[in-house]
Amino acid sequence: MLPTPAVDWSPDRTALRILDQRALPQDERIVDLHRIEDVIDAIAQLAVRGAPAIGVAAAIGLVVCLAAAAENDDGVARRLLPEYAERLVAARPTAVNLAWAVRRMTARAAAHATAHAATQDESASPVAGPSARSSLLGALRDEAEAIRREDCLMCEAIGVHGLPLIPDGTRVLTHCNAGALATAGIGTALAPVYTAHAQGRRVHVYADETRPLRQGARLTAWELSRAGIEVTVLPDGAAASLLASGNVDIVIVGADRIAANGDVANKIGTYGVALAARAHGIPFYVAAPWSTIDADTPDGRAIVIEHRAPGELTPLPDGVGAWNPAFDVTPRALVTGYLTDRGLVSPPFESAHA
Amino acid sequence: MLPTPAVDWSPDRTALRILDQRALPQDERIVDLHRIEDVIDAIAQLAVRGAPAIGVAAAIGLVVCLAAAAENDDGVARRLLPEYAERLVAARPTAVNLAWAVRRMTARAAAHATAHAATQDESASPVAGPSARSSLLGALRDEAEAIRREDCLMCEAIGVHGLPLIPDGTRVLTHCNAGALATAGIGTALAPVYTAHAQGRRVHVYADETRPLRQGARLTAWELSRAGIEVTVLPDGAAASLLASGNVDIVIVGADRIAANGDVANKIGTYGVALAARAHGIPFYVAAPWSTIDADTPDGRAIVIEHRAPGELTPLPDGVGAWNPAFDVTPRALVTGYLTDRGLVSPPFESAHA
Repeated sequence: MLPTPAVDWSPDRTALRILDQRALPQDERIVDLHRIEDVIDAIAQLAVRGAPAIGVAAAIGLVVCLAAAAENDDGVARRLLPEYAERLVAARPTAVNLAWAVRRMTARAAAHATAHAATQDESASPVAGPSARSSLLGALRDEAEAIRREDCLMCEAIGVHGLPLIPDGTRVLTHCNAGALATAGIGTALAPVYTAHAQGRRVHVYADETRPLRQGARLTAWELSRAGIEVTVLPDGAAASLLASGNVDIVIVGADRIAANGDVANKIGTYGVALAARAHGIPFYVAAPWSTIDADTPDGRAIVIEHRAPGELTPLPDGVGAWNPAFDVTPRALVTGYLTDRGLVSPPFESAHA
Repeated sequence: MLPTPAVDWSPDRTALRILDQRALPQDERIVDLHRIEDVIDAIAQLAVRGAPAIGVAAAIGLVVCLAAAAENDDGVARRLLPEYAERLVAARPTAVNLAWAVRRMTARAAAHATAHAATQDESASPVAGPSARSSLLGALRDEAEAIRREDCLMCEAIGVHGLPLIPDGTRVLTHCNAGALATAGIGTALAPVYTAHAQGRRVHVYADETRPLRQGARLTAWELSRAGIEVTVLPDGAAASLLASGNVDIVIVGADRIAANGDVANKIGTYGVALAARAHGIPFYVAAPWSTIDADTPDGRAIVIEHRAPGELTPLPDGVGAWNPAFDVTPRALVTGYLTDRGLVSPPFESAHA
């Protein structure tokens, strides 16, 4: 839906191509990266953001940087891999998808090495398998592309499962950005909006500004307006009043983590929106990849909330501090349903991680 | 409590002295105004803001500008008065206190003219009253000073009545700025905080940032920290989470208008805070002058909400609009009590405007 995906390969597959989200909405800056320092910076400084997008960026970034540094020499790439993987994971230590994607890439490299060793043992055999014939860098390119494609398919599945929630004329309120800019595809919370729009349904999205970093005003508003979808920004404090006004049919937000009991950690401000939606009888849906459901987290109390620097709220008077949590927890009781790539589900998520 | 009150006379009483709130918190800019254009600009451009402070500024501003323009000639001042009064009221047409203060001043001028005419009829009498001997400008100075003093006393009364709500160690959440900067005195919502602090009680105030104009971060945080009171700023979206955390004992906010049934119009974002306070069983108080109770407004539905320019939410992507109401309405059911200069009251406000 975006003119340029948030994360992708460059056309010749030698670089990671990103849309630098720090420059939005003023500038649409497309950047090709093939040095590990630059990929790390892009992730650390939020040029790429959104859990799914970070995972894809790490996977593509890892292989293109290895190929460039090793001048496509498999042996050199294999020696560089552990260091590159470690540095990438450290770029945002709390980003679960980052570590997950890097683990998938290193596991693929390990599998390739095993297959390669086996092939060497059987070097006399005329029937060596295809994995033996492919290069390490080729295998890593395949794995990164699989991660990217799975992410796109996950988004599309959420969009299809969410379509019945968005009849013609629906007015949606969302918070933060769980859209195309947060994934390699059409987003999570916004996937049903894009899917409905593609079918010719009229949709109007209200986007909370989402202080302090303004992802709603900067990113959600930008990507929806670029796609030709009507969008109106409001201050976070106006959400309760908007819900009271009768001008919202459904709330859809993303999730950073979903506990086993259904409690949802998401961008700060989500909980207040959920309370107001409940007060006015408006359905409140959480849209996220199935992988966001964390069977190891029994409930919201077990979720450690990251607190960010007061500087995000500047200017402040000298000597005044800020309470600036990145996330809040919305209890299961306030959530109407969970929209995942496996369909609309509810806790207990019995087949979680099946 | 402030080093300089938000509105006052200059020391020689020839000018309106204000603390320019547009420059806060970076600059503490004290400005003396004695030209009507400058007073109008200060009110229109929010150098002075807060309903009580605007009323006091209009009253003092009117008399000092008349005196300066008329070079203290009563006859000239009387001829200029209607034009000055009309221009002042037009500076912020929806500010009820502005029109109210100007009406009080023109009524005083009319009373003075009547008394003066009567005295002339009785010019042979040796017992002419004091009003006859006083000048028009003197009478207007007295009226402006009465308005200023009454405002200070109103604040102090709210502080005293609110003191039992603020035992030692209380943690208060407030929204926007209903503090010293909004009045000639110690504020309305913050009056109990200042009063408790003056008695040696420890108080910690959490101030919602209050987008889009950031009155909490810029003004509430500034005035409390200047007074030596601990204050922490939070994004508006974090208020529900803070209330859930157990770190707030009481919410106190101001009011722009209180309907006869107790519904409260206040700065956008107040309603969401009230919903979250109720969800967590935290008392939610509204502090305001008794004059804020409007017997002519039966309930919140009768309150017309001012919508402000999308530009307050810039930067926004090209072509994206904003929903930017200045106020919201908190229903009576969410309000624990109404803290006024006449005490802690509840609807029906039977002696309203008694």
